[in-house]
Amino acid sequence: MKDFYVSRTGRDAALIARGEPVVYGEGRYADALDEGQLQAYERDGFLILPGVFGAAEIQALREEAQALEHDPAVREGEEVIREPGGTALRSIFRVHELGRRLAELPRDPRLLDVARQILGSEVYIHQSRVNMKPALDGKEFYWHSDFETWHVEDGMPAMRALSCSVLLTDNTAFNGPLMLIPGSHRQFVACVGETPEDHYRTSLRRQEVGVPDPVSLRLLAERGGLEAAIAPAGSVVFFDCNTLHGSAGNLSPWPRSNVFMVYNSVENRLQAPFHGMKPRPEHIAARRSAEPLTPLRAAA
Amino acid sequence: MKDFYVSRTGRDAALIARGEPVVYGEGRYADALDEGQLQAYERDGFLILPGVFGAAEIQALREEAQALEHDPAVREGEEVIREPGGTALRSIFRVHELGRRLAELPRDPRLLDVARQILGSEVYIHQSRVNMKPALDGKEFYWHSDFETWHVEDGMPAMRALSCSVLLTDNTAFNGPLMLIPGSHRQFVACVGETPEDHYRTSLRRQEVGVPDPVSLRLLAERGGLEAAIAPAGSVVFFDCNTLHGSAGNLSPWPRSNVFMVYNSVENRLQAPFHGMKPRPEHIAARRSAEPLTPLRAAA
Repeated sequence: MKDFYVSRTGRDAALIARGEPVVYGEGRYADALDEGQLQAYERDGFLILPGVFGAAEIQALREEAQALEHDPAVREGEEVIREPGGTALRSIFRVHELGRRLAELPRDPRLLDVARQILGSEVYIHQSRVNMKPALDGKEFYWHSDFETWHVEDGMPAMRALSCSVLLTDNTAFNGPLMLIPGSHRQFVACVGETPEDHYRTSLRRQEVGVPDPVSLRLLAERGGLEAAIAPAGSVVFFDCNTLHGSAGNLSPWPRSNVFMVYNSVENRLQAPFHGMKPRPEHIAARRSAEPLTPLRAAA
Repeated sequence: MKDFYVSRTGRDAALIARGEPVVYGEGRYADALDEGQLQAYERDGFLILPGVFGAAEIQALREEAQALEHDPAVREGEEVIREPGGTALRSIFRVHELGRRLAELPRDPRLLDVARQILGSEVYIHQSRVNMKPALDGKEFYWHSDFETWHVEDGMPAMRALSCSVLLTDNTAFNGPLMLIPGSHRQFVACVGETPEDHYRTSLRRQEVGVPDPVSLRLLAERGGLEAAIAPAGSVVFFDCNTLHGSAGNLSPWPRSNVFMVYNSVENRLQAPFHGMKPRPEHIAARRSAEPLTPLRAAA
């Protein structure tokens, strides 16, 4: 198969026009979003929906995430990523299989139907995690396209995936909210450098390979501007797998915690990684457990 | 002399009530600020004045700062501080003696008279610098009280000094603006730990000793909240020497550059540092060149 999105082959950086849709099947596969929301998503590469979850729901999810964070078995597991230069937890992966409420979350129609509508097919969870961004010294996430990594390191063929971030705490100007570059999803930024073996062991703490070059970043930011997903707990941010995003550190004395889930189309399942790399672990890139999700029936 | 503000003696952290004014002489020494502005400064420990400098003035200052940044003699001098883990410039000290326009800046009545009014006396420059916060990887400044360091490491007797930050670029939510804790100037946070020798060589890149403990920070932030000095180029932020402040990293593709000058009262000149430490260099803490500033006469 010809690789349209060649990256990390030691060549110079390049901006490659996206050769495929943002919204698949004209957004008719489901009807969670209205036409204006779909258009905004298609134009910007993301959509912020405030007030999707109520306070009690968020409280329960947050308590479950905190319980995982303090569970000794979880803390010793391979699903845990620590802060660069520290021992505080930065992320816990595979939370959609570790928690009870967190396991139901991807099947919640308020999320699942948005994913099905945008991706125009049934979908499954490619990856999930809770990002903690601890108070006072939670470190930044540098700018990146998720798709660049998933394509190169996981063999994800096309840009037919999206991320969904459920805000467990208020995301404010002070605690390192998600920042996005509107419109950046329409170009693939081919990155310089080659991928070290077992790259995920370091890249999930601090990414240095597979990051866009400064010239491309500046160009895209000058055209599209920057936007911060500043929103109260219970809001949800959906963003395209190729939208450039990052976040600054959290200097506030309050943690910033979000559940992050990646929906991938069943027609976009992973192939072999590029460049002969071995597949990343299942908790980072699902291969075996890639069954289509069925909607959760609403509780009585 | 009894030290009211004991810090870094290996004891536990402590919150010590400020024992002296914020605005000296009831703000009658000059008349740059009106009563409402003085009250806001006294209450919050800072004041943001938009539009103090015009676009042409700021452009000229920015060009001079950039010229210093690229001057090989400056780059090799001891006035230069580099980013932690990098070679990009983080700060250039003593800019009020290196540049021409930057030399005039502290004497500009729009700044000088505010300092004289708040401090209730003639004043001199204790320290000056340009903080660059370079695009994409300018690193954070952790929370701190300037006075804590100036008191312990420089022997500054009292809280009769203030900082003045002249914004050379727009300070936005994306480029790591100054963040302050309103009301924090009314307590001195005694810090844990002892001061290593030549501490300034590392602390100006990344401070780890002389920083407030998490419990005190949370308490003060819960009471006073947080405020970001988001303002366009040409604005000026005045803040009390004991106001807790910090700033996140700059992930935006544009630098965030400010001139930072510290006015100290001539009645508050430095004494010997505490704990028998040797004085820090002149470009960080002025001792010899501590002459009162005369106002610059306006150009015709």
